[in-house]
Amino acid sequence: MNTDPAHTTFMRRALALARRGWGKTHPNPMVGALIVEEGKIVAEGWHEKAGEAHAEVAAIRALGRDPKPGATLYVTLEPCSTEGRTPPCTEAILRAGILKIVVGATDPNPDHAGRGLDVLRERGVEVVSGVLAPDCEDLNLIFNHWIVHKRPLVAAKIASTLDGHTATREGHSKWITGEEARRDVHRWRRYFPAIAVGSNTLRVDNPALTSRLEETWCPTRFIFDRTLRTVGEPLPRVYSDEWRGQTIVVTDSADAPRRLKTLNDAGVEVWQMRAARFFDSFLEKCTEAGITGVYVEGGSSLLGLLLEEHRIDYLFSYRAPVFLADPEALPALRGLVSTTLDAAPRLKNIRHALYGDDQLMRGHIVYP
Amino acid sequence: MNTDPAHTTFMRRALALARRGWGKTHPNPMVGALIVEEGKIVAEGWHEKAGEAHAEVAAIRALGRDPKPGATLYVTLEPCSTEGRTPPCTEAILRAGILKIVVGATDPNPDHAGRGLDVLRERGVEVVSGVLAPDCEDLNLIFNHWIVHKRPLVAAKIASTLDGHTATREGHSKWITGEEARRDVHRWRRYFPAIAVGSNTLRVDNPALTSRLEETWCPTRFIFDRTLRTVGEPLPRVYSDEWRGQTIVVTDSADAPRRLKTLNDAGVEVWQMRAARFFDSFLEKCTEAGITGVYVEGGSSLLGLLLEEHRIDYLFSYRAPVFLADPEALPALRGLVSTTLDAAPRLKNIRHALYGDDQLMRGHIVYP
Repeated sequence: MNTDPAHTTFMRRALALARRGWGKTHPNPMVGALIVEEGKIVAEGWHEKAGEAHAEVAAIRALGRDPKPGATLYVTLEPCSTEGRTPPCTEAILRAGILKIVVGATDPNPDHAGRGLDVLRERGVEVVSGVLAPDCEDLNLIFNHWIVHKRPLVAAKIASTLDGHTATREGHSKWITGEEARRDVHRWRRYFPAIAVGSNTLRVDNPALTSRLEETWCPTRFIFDRTLRTVGEPLPRVYSDEWRGQTIVVTDSADAPRRLKTLNDAGVEVWQMRAARFFDSFLEKCTEAGITGVYVEGGSSLLGLLLEEHRIDYLFSYRAPVFLADPEALPALRGLVSTTLDAAPRLKNIRHALYGDDQLMRGHIVYP
Repeated sequence: MNTDPAHTTFMRRALALARRGWGKTHPNPMVGALIVEEGKIVAEGWHEKAGEAHAEVAAIRALGRDPKPGATLYVTLEPCSTEGRTPPCTEAILRAGILKIVVGATDPNPDHAGRGLDVLRERGVEVVSGVLAPDCEDLNLIFNHWIVHKRPLVAAKIASTLDGHTATREGHSKWITGEEARRDVHRWRRYFPAIAVGSNTLRVDNPALTSRLEETWCPTRFIFDRTLRTVGEPLPRVYSDEWRGQTIVVTDSADAPRRLKTLNDAGVEVWQMRAARFFDSFLEKCTEAGITGVYVEGGSSLLGLLLEEHRIDYLFSYRAPVFLADPEALPALRGLVSTTLDAAPRLKNIRHALYGDDQLMRGHIVYP
């Protein structure tokens, strides 16, 4: 890890630029880049969305002239060296005459990792790598997973009391966490191309499942409802609001023609899965549809079923400074039944954050 | 709140000095003080233990001469204005000729709060108060409670998985949290004059209940064992180790003469309480004995009984990045059964900390 403070400062700025593409770059990563001459930032760029210029190219274009001798390009992710929708960035960098580059994360694709840096080094470019690498990697949780596994990243969110309950024994869960934590959830709803909830959550909470920040945004909304019990009068919001075209009901029910027709009439898509390979088929279908990440917001039953099959890759766990001390209250997680601590799943690449008085712990799940 | 950065810097140093008395000043508070002349620290002091000089006096003594004009005294707690074991500090300050004082926390005793500052102001001393007040208050959790309630501060510690379990369904709890969090527990064991555990914890874990940091320290060790079932062969460590004279068994059993004799022979004290007012009598007896704080480390049954009676004043809740997803695993807390979130106890004066990958959330419990 390189710890030159100037490198760190410029890379932080490049990260801030990358985040301007928050949730908008799928299936591509968020990337930020900037050019420094004589210690000053002279050009900035970021990847806005798939099909648009990569961040390095955007920064070079923003400069609009030949870089001065000694100009350094900072970029949060190793430049691509392969032809994609756009020509390789390594070529653009060489053509621009940039002779020094400082990189954050390396390419998460094991077949490509470091190749872009090698190409540049071979052509005489000075390369510094690994600056704020953990932060640069953390930015692209979905892309990193998609590239390696060719499957969507399945993330689960839980918001619990400090004693691990996500609802009272009566089923009340509003509001365990505070406003700032709930706002962070909306940030993640904007990050993931799709959200998923179970039928019980839909019936109890009738959620909008939109991201409501400066602007309101509707991701793909998956409703897991094996028996189509959510299709009734009045129709839940996700089947009747202005974004109902982005709602997809995932079911294995084939014998509820009236309910299927109701959904069809409402313009709601239905994915019919075989009961035997339910989640597997679902993830395959997501892959076909180019859905790179799914943010599962519960409830407890859906999370339990997914956990049982080790289908959850990533966990967001918020906890609030409140407790119920009631063993009958809803457990945050079930379905795995680890009877020893050695057999218990652990998080890795852990990140901590505070939102008001609530704590967030998030990370990749490692199943033993 | 005063936010002059110089004040903050000096107060932080005074806090560090105060902490040198960590766990050694009961029933007095930890206090740190220093004298600044022309922007430089020229003398430092802290309260070492009850009966020794108060921090302000220690700093004035350390100076060993008259302060220069403009000298400022920083002290983490409002100086006392009443005669105690030592003469009032306000007099010492005036006598020393100090004309400016910067204070952290005000006196937690509502009858005295602000009086020391008023005395100084009336006598022409410039007073700045409230600098790092939350940190200065947080330092003396036990003292602050003792002064107001004339009862020990009862604190509970739980170390749980992220889904709120303190042990597997088989009872395994070693080790949920990591080494750094466990080290923090030893810091709190050094802070509290007494530790308490239930009989089940003693039987399962046979803990030493000492604080093992640079030096090993044994607080008063309360074993809650209503039936004296922990008294058997081989004797648990707390009844047989070199500190067994600091172990006190709290029981309502009166009909186990052989077990009582075993404890007596081992030199272990027994507090016999009436079943009817068990915890109440226990706390009264602690008060009589001058025990200002009790750190309850579990297990789940003891905590549940205490919670039921709203006897826990303060909570330390560690959580580790691991989960069991097993509703049959041991719940972190029980006994209260809050069926609504409005009726759920919340923490206030919340503090967050990270120990390795583990999170700590601590605060005073507010029962609705």
